Amino acid sequence: MKLWGGRFEKPTDRLVEEFTSSLPIDTRLYEYDIKGSLAHVAMLSGCGIISSEEADTISQGLNKIYKEIKDGSFKFNVSDEDIHLAIERSLIERVGPVGGKLHTARSRNDQVALDMRMYLKETIKEIATLVVALQNTLLDLAKKHLDVILPGYTHLQRAQPILFSHHYLAYFFMLQRDFERLKGCHQRTDVMPLGTAAIAGTSFAVDRKMVADQLGFARISENSVDTTSDRDFVVEFLSTASILMVHLSRLAEEIVLWSSSEFGFIELDDAYTTGSSIMPQKKNPDVAELVRAKTARVMGNLIAMLATLKALPMSYNRDLQEDKNSLFSTVDVLVPSLLVFKGMLETIRLRKENMQEAAAQDFSTATDIADYLVSKGLPFRQAHEIVGRLVKDCLKDGNNSFNKLTLEEFKKASQLFDEDVFKIIVPLGSVENKVSEGGTSTESVKGQIKKANAYLKKSGDWLK
Amino acid sequence: MKLWGGRFEKPTDRLVEEFTSSLPIDTRLYEYDIKGSLAHVAMLSGCGIISSEEADTISQGLNKIYKEIKDGSFKFNVSDEDIHLAIERSLIERVGPVGGKLHTARSRNDQVALDMRMYLKETIKEIATLVVALQNTLLDLAKKHLDVILPGYTHLQRAQPILFSHHYLAYFFMLQRDFERLKGCHQRTDVMPLGTAAIAGTSFAVDRKMVADQLGFARISENSVDTTSDRDFVVEFLSTASILMVHLSRLAEEIVLWSSSEFGFIELDDAYTTGSSIMPQKKNPDVAELVRAKTARVMGNLIAMLATLKALPMSYNRDLQEDKNSLFSTVDVLVPSLLVFKGMLETIRLRKENMQEAAAQDFSTATDIADYLVSKGLPFRQAHEIVGRLVKDCLKDGNNSFNKLTLEEFKKASQLFDEDVFKIIVPLGSVENKVSEGGTSTESVKGQIKKANAYLKKSGDWLK
Amino acid sequence: MKLWGGRFEKPTDRLVEEFTSSLPIDTRLYEYDIKGSLAHVAMLSGCGIISSEEADTISQGLNKIYKEIKDGSFKFNVSDEDIHLAIERSLIERVGPVGGKLHTARSRNDQVALDMRMYLKETIKEIATLVVALQNTLLDLAKKHLDVILPGYTHLQRAQPILFSHHYLAYFFMLQRDFERLKGCHQRTDVMPLGTAAIAGTSFAVDRKMVADQLGFARISENSVDTTSDRDFVVEFLSTASILMVHLSRLAEEIVLWSSSEFGFIELDDAYTTGSSIMPQKKNPDVAELVRAKTARVMGNLIAMLATLKALPMSYNRDLQEDKNSLFSTVDVLVPSLLVFKGMLETIRLRKENMQEAAAQDFSTATDIADYLVSKGLPFRQAHEIVGRLVKDCLKDGNNSFNKLTLEEFKKASQLFDEDVFKIIVPLGSVENKVSEGGTSTESVKGQIKKANAYLKKSGDWLK
Amino acid sequence: MKLWGGRFEKPTDRLVEEFTSSLPIDTRLYEYDIKGSLAHVAMLSGCGIISSEEADTISQGLNKIYKEIKDGSFKFNVSDEDIHLAIERSLIERVGPVGGKLHTARSRNDQVALDMRMYLKETIKEIATLVVALQNTLLDLAKKHLDVILPGYTHLQRAQPILFSHHYLAYFFMLQRDFERLKGCHQRTDVMPLGTAAIAGTSFAVDRKMVADQLGFARISENSVDTTSDRDFVVEFLSTASILMVHLSRLAEEIVLWSSSEFGFIELDDAYTTGSSIMPQKKNPDVAELVRAKTARVMGNLIAMLATLKALPMSYNRDLQEDKNSLFSTVDVLVPSLLVFKGMLETIRLRKENMQEAAAQDFSTATDIADYLVSKGLPFRQAHEIVGRLVKDCLKDGNNSFNKLTLEEFKKASQLFDEDVFKIIVPLGSVENKVSEGGTSTESVKGQIKKANAYLKKSGDWLK
Repeated sequence: MKLWGGRFEKPTDRLVEEFTSSLPIDTRLYEYDIKGSLAHVAMLSGCGIISSEEADTISQGLNKIYKEIKDGSFKFNVSDEDIHLAIERSLIERVGPVGGKLHTARSRNDQVALDMRMYLKETIKEIATLVVALQNTLLDLAKKHLDVILPGYTHLQRAQPILFSHHYLAYFFMLQRDFERLKGCHQRTDVMPLGTAAIAGTSFAVDRKMVADQLGFARISENSVDTTSDRDFVVEFLSTASILMVHLSRLAEEIVLWSSSEFGFIELDDAYTTGSSIMPQKKNPDVAELVRAKTARVMGNLIAMLATLKALPMSYNRDLQEDKNSLFSTVDVLVPSLLVFKGMLETIRLRKENMQEAAAQDFSTATDIADYLVSKGLPFRQAHEIVGRLVKDCLKDGNNSFNKLTLEEFKKASQLFDEDVFKIIVPLGSVENKVSEGGTSTESVKGQIKKANAYLKKSGDWLK
Repeated sequence: MKLWGGRFEKPTDRLVEEFTSSLPIDTRLYEYDIKGSLAHVAMLSGCGIISSEEADTISQGLNKIYKEIKDGSFKFNVSDEDIHLAIERSLIERVGPVGGKLHTARSRNDQVALDMRMYLKETIKEIATLVVALQNTLLDLAKKHLDVILPGYTHLQRAQPILFSHHYLAYFFMLQRDFERLKGCHQRTDVMPLGTAAIAGTSFAVDRKMVADQLGFARISENSVDTTSDRDFVVEFLSTASILMVHLSRLAEEIVLWSSSEFGFIELDDAYTTGSSIMPQKKNPDVAELVRAKTARVMGNLIAMLATLKALPMSYNRDLQEDKNSLFSTVDVLVPSLLVFKGMLETIRLRKENMQEAAAQDFSTATDIADYLVSKGLPFRQAHEIVGRLVKDCLKDGNNSFNKLTLEEFKKASQLFDEDVFKIIVPLGSVENKVSEGGTSTESVKGQIKKANAYLKKSGDWLK
Repeated sequence: MKLWGGRFEKPTDRLVEEFTSSLPIDTRLYEYDIKGSLAHVAMLSGCGIISSEEADTISQGLNKIYKEIKDGSFKFNVSDEDIHLAIERSLIERVGPVGGKLHTARSRNDQVALDMRMYLKETIKEIATLVVALQNTLLDLAKKHLDVILPGYTHLQRAQPILFSHHYLAYFFMLQRDFERLKGCHQRTDVMPLGTAAIAGTSFAVDRKMVADQLGFARISENSVDTTSDRDFVVEFLSTASILMVHLSRLAEEIVLWSSSEFGFIELDDAYTTGSSIMPQKKNPDVAELVRAKTARVMGNLIAMLATLKALPMSYNRDLQEDKNSLFSTVDVLVPSLLVFKGMLETIRLRKENMQEAAAQDFSTATDIADYLVSKGLPFRQAHEIVGRLVKDCLKDGNNSFNKLTLEEFKKASQLFDEDVFKIIVPLGSVENKVSEGGTSTESVKGQIKKANAYLKKSGDWLK
Repeated sequence: MKLWGGRFEKPTDRLVEEFTSSLPIDTRLYEYDIKGSLAHVAMLSGCGIISSEEADTISQGLNKIYKEIKDGSFKFNVSDEDIHLAIERSLIERVGPVGGKLHTARSRNDQVALDMRMYLKETIKEIATLVVALQNTLLDLAKKHLDVILPGYTHLQRAQPILFSHHYLAYFFMLQRDFERLKGCHQRTDVMPLGTAAIAGTSFAVDRKMVADQLGFARISENSVDTTSDRDFVVEFLSTASILMVHLSRLAEEIVLWSSSEFGFIELDDAYTTGSSIMPQKKNPDVAELVRAKTARVMGNLIAMLATLKALPMSYNRDLQEDKNSLFSTVDVLVPSLLVFKGMLETIRLRKENMQEAAAQDFSTATDIADYLVSKGLPFRQAHEIVGRLVKDCLKDGNNSFNKLTLEEFKKASQLFDEDVFKIIVPLGSVENKVSEGGTSTESVKGQIKKANAYLKKSGDWLK
């Protein structure tokens, strides 16, 4: 018989039992469920709602169940609806009717909210740790390859020469924003729901702060109706995860591009690629492709959760059970994606000559030449026009860089040109020119590395 | 060593192996994979590409593997990337190097497309069968309760009295559109991809039509580049599934509303509800709530698939592997949702008096009174205004139906009113008035039932 | 005063008026609204519900309003909620109370469904016409460049040499599926809703088929509750549009890639690119980028519509008003995207030498060599292994194609190699090898062109 | 000629011009664009890059343009691609070639990022202000109706009696989380991008902090590649907006339910409802329905933005232009939704007797009775069972509340029952029992009101 079966004439239909069961999914929460129950029992006893002997009996029973689930020996019943009822059912079987006191002053509604928040708090910290690890990898690469120049792209067209280090630091700072968002999300998850019961609170003189303290929560929730129907923390996490995955997908796209024959900027380690069942020569960047695709899955999980919550009246509705599907599926994408990206980047080989050569072509230093004219007094818009025509003329001559132009030819375009123009038409000159804060000159990049270190220190403090 | 490992210096990283493996998901396709391979082998031998002895050896091996996977005795390796390679690896272990001839004139790219199309064709028929079963249930309810009147709602405000049968037939005709869409989707899935190989076709003189015939496909695909990168059939199915789930979610919403104390229109069977862990009196429409929520998951799967395909260059990319996640997750929602809804509706109890009483209140027949005035010559817009004022006056008198109005009071509103107005202010009069095709009068509803039967007959023919 | 104001004590709040008004959006439907009203009036008079004089008066009024809206002289009122009420309000102002007879046996609920279906039917045909036009462009390119070879890609790695014509025909056949889906969607849109009124049908003896015939609808809707709440046809169109845009986005992605310096496969016409405000040398494939991005918008519109419909109880709810936003926004992406892509492709310049050169590198013919060994009796899996090792050895020697290998070196890898291997290691040999139906050999491609022509003929027939 | 046209041979195609133009959308940013340019010019002059006379000339020109756009007299050209080029083009026309100096050390890439951030910072504050205003309305209602009891619902089944004030405070605390998220999003938007130019930074000795200070930014961005391709702040806002709209949609759903005849808990003011074109008696909660539906649009905008960014390589791509569509569409939903909800709630009428009556039925106090038994020593699970059976027995007797039970009947269920049970079976007794923090007792609700006031004070400080 169900633990809630007193009012019913008939048992649940078997198919319905399967359809409504969340056990295959929420078993994953057992650890948090039991820890939460232990804290609840301690509080009930501390407040005199149950005796300390009863509390001991229940706690011992729970601890045994914990061990059994952990080592795989726990017996689930077909009719256990979810992990919460499975544990309570087993507890009563073990310790007798006194086990029925565990659910005093509690409902599954606040209990599942507690489990989810405990799980997510821990998970966020785990993910934040992986983000920091990936940032470290990116920073190491940036430090190591300070002398590598490649074309910076806009519209996938070569735009201006930049340092490889500068490029990879872009990803570092993206991830830093992800880290901040994870922190904000953690803060809003760190709210203890237990004691709000089904919807209205409880008539027992519970001490909610005691439970919060014991479980390491920063504060307790303020309104019981809100508490049992609130899944903001899940949506906020899914949205934060989506942005993080979008960042990885952009890096993934570049890795796919850069490891193509056409770009030839990097080579992935054999350990991070796979072959083709039919084409013997193939070496495919599957890891990057899969991360790119799984980004879409996380986005789908986000929209699924939002659409689940839309227009749900207060308070708890069974629809909320689906939160676990979206949440776990997202975590199961995020954690390995971060891990595998770290390994892939650590073993990446740069093909510097190809990068360098690409940077030297296609007039990437055109802006520098325009700026040069501006520094000689020409309004930028006119300088832009002159250099644009210069490019057009070169192309007509079958020339795809400024390198072959003579000073005379430069002067024909504008009398303002002089010998010193040759310094800036080469990639390195262009790069070192970009002295503005956040720009690509070596000095500026070193400044960014300093800032990156400072961020990492602060992140480490929070993660402790 | 991997089956594609010839070109590689190093084995795949363990974490990468896990990350890129689709085995936990695509094992589900084993049956189609093996059937497809058997047809491929028969064709290779039929065309003289391999000998008939070789074909026999391979086929016997495949059949054994089939049985082992089916009965659970098959041994998967950790390094099997997917179901295709697992089977081929095991085949070669069993029959020796000749097993390596199975992959002649084939790539995983066209092989996985084949498996997916075979799986989906069968699944669509299964789902269409369940749709028809649910339509039958709705039609039975409509036939059985032809005498039940309830308020039709717009904006969740009582609008006009309608027959319960009419209301439930609305869902019948919705599902009919779903059925038609499933058919269209089946038609576009029914295209045989094998023989397009990796991307360019194959140099062996294969007979693709022979494979198509053997596997029951209507036609073969036309362009190999397109074929290996095409997942339109998956997206179209996910979109069809989304609309179908949206229909169920609307019915689910009504079941939740109607089984509330406030509506009190239906009672769900105990077997299709669950109780509360804390509140002993509760009986909750969980099945309907979960179907409502799972609709969101299917929508999420659709958007995940679309976002996966967006901006993928030709032809096969590893991203496509994620199609299985979206597809299987959707099927696993759809099939039980249809099943459980059928059972829930079959056991539903109508609380007719509550429906009837609700239909008699709140001026639901106001439109009929306006139409009455129109039939006496008044322009509709003026008739609408007069009845609107009549309602306002009733409300001021604390009166929430027309029943208590005297003829005198009617006449004060308009001299056009006469004794016969009293016939149409009651729900039944209003209902029987709606004689237009597709309207709610008993006669019209009987006409709809006839149409419904005709649809079912035609559907049955297709499903055969 | 509102046309529905009889029952109300107070006017609508000004802000609410603005918030709920759909006039800025649905004015676009005026043509369909008036055509629908004219057919409705003709039917009312034909059935004797209004007199033919009344019908004439109303029709003349409607025709004048049509002209005024068309030429921009029509005066909208601030309090007109939507295009339907604006027209009816203006009609009554012009022709007096008899104008109030227009709304006899009709509700806005079925009226807006009619307008939407008329609009969408026409729009689908327009879009299908543009799809066919784009297919023609693709086919022309395929016919024109039958001699161009480029690498076919999987995982964005060079896989096997293919004909450019073959590659572009892939897009032709994708679009053919879009065309079929548009047809299916048109068929399900081609259902006449008028006469179902608010929810229950109407008490007037209307002839719905007469209206359907006059407006060119294939059939009438079957159930009034379903009819007024049904937006399946919008969702199905949005989903069809999403898949179509995904196809364009894939082509867009390739155009971006191919016009990069790294690929250098095509050059876009100046008229289809734009420059940079700062970098004088830039020429950006903006059109392709925007089509790629707008694909996401269409996907967003689809999900917005699905989420709007989810869990809406029967029948009409004001939520449905938002369908227009999703629908029009999608059409406004789709139509110009198709137009602009056509122009862009017509003016594209192929850089054949670059394509050819790329096809000759990176061992794209490895599969052919493996197949060669198979044809000499080796099981494919062993052949794959041998060629894989050959590639590995070449790479070690700094060699990125098979061209420099001597017969001796080939023989060292396998004694099965002979002189004739040199025929298939060049791109053209590999291409012409792929004789399977749908493969990339010139002959097969010519077969595809024939099929494409047949499709176009059939499409033309439907569009007539 | 285009401002970037130097390199081009041919003008842009007219259709392309329309397709790529963002002018119809981004004109909305003119104010921020000009303010940003003024600060940029001041900095250029402050750093000696242009002379102070040149700066004055440019600034005066910009100020005139500002006035003209504001009063509608500004002339846009068909070929102006966007608001940035329209303004620069007009500036040069007015002040001559010196106007071409404005774009020194700047690109549209960083310029549009600046405009978007300025716009969004201001918009977030505006929305946060509206959130606080709506919180005030909710709090006022909670303070005013402290004596109103209604059933709290779970699964839309009556669960436990709660105070109306408690229920509406649930929405207050939801909105408080929205406020916190808006703050976090503002913080991450408050980063000054100018000076990062196209992608690499600039070669001019600019002072980025000077620009930041002048425009009221908290800090400058750290990496130029990241800066010009970053739209995290837009996505984060869209996600925050989605959650906020989900909250409104839940309240909207309840308003629709509560204003139905079946619930009858509230009456909306005539000014916040609309009528039916056909049914004279209707009074529809359109505002709530539209907010519910527009929630879906915001979700669609979020997913569109995420799908736009997915897999975009560094750095700026034209795809980013579509951010404005998603952003503005969302703001245009959010602002009026918040405004109109405030007005609707301020004028809502509670039908207290209906609420009270509903709370007294359907055994809502069953949990209290179970708790009662627990307080007499029974384990909760047994108490739950006993009360469940009591409910079943009542239902069999056609009794839908505990009110008619005698003490004898109670005692038959359990000897632990005594006279005092009658105190808690009435709603008020049940409510006042829930003394736990965050529970529904009057005392606890007063505590929540205190907390709400404290939040509002803090929010006010931030908004200043």
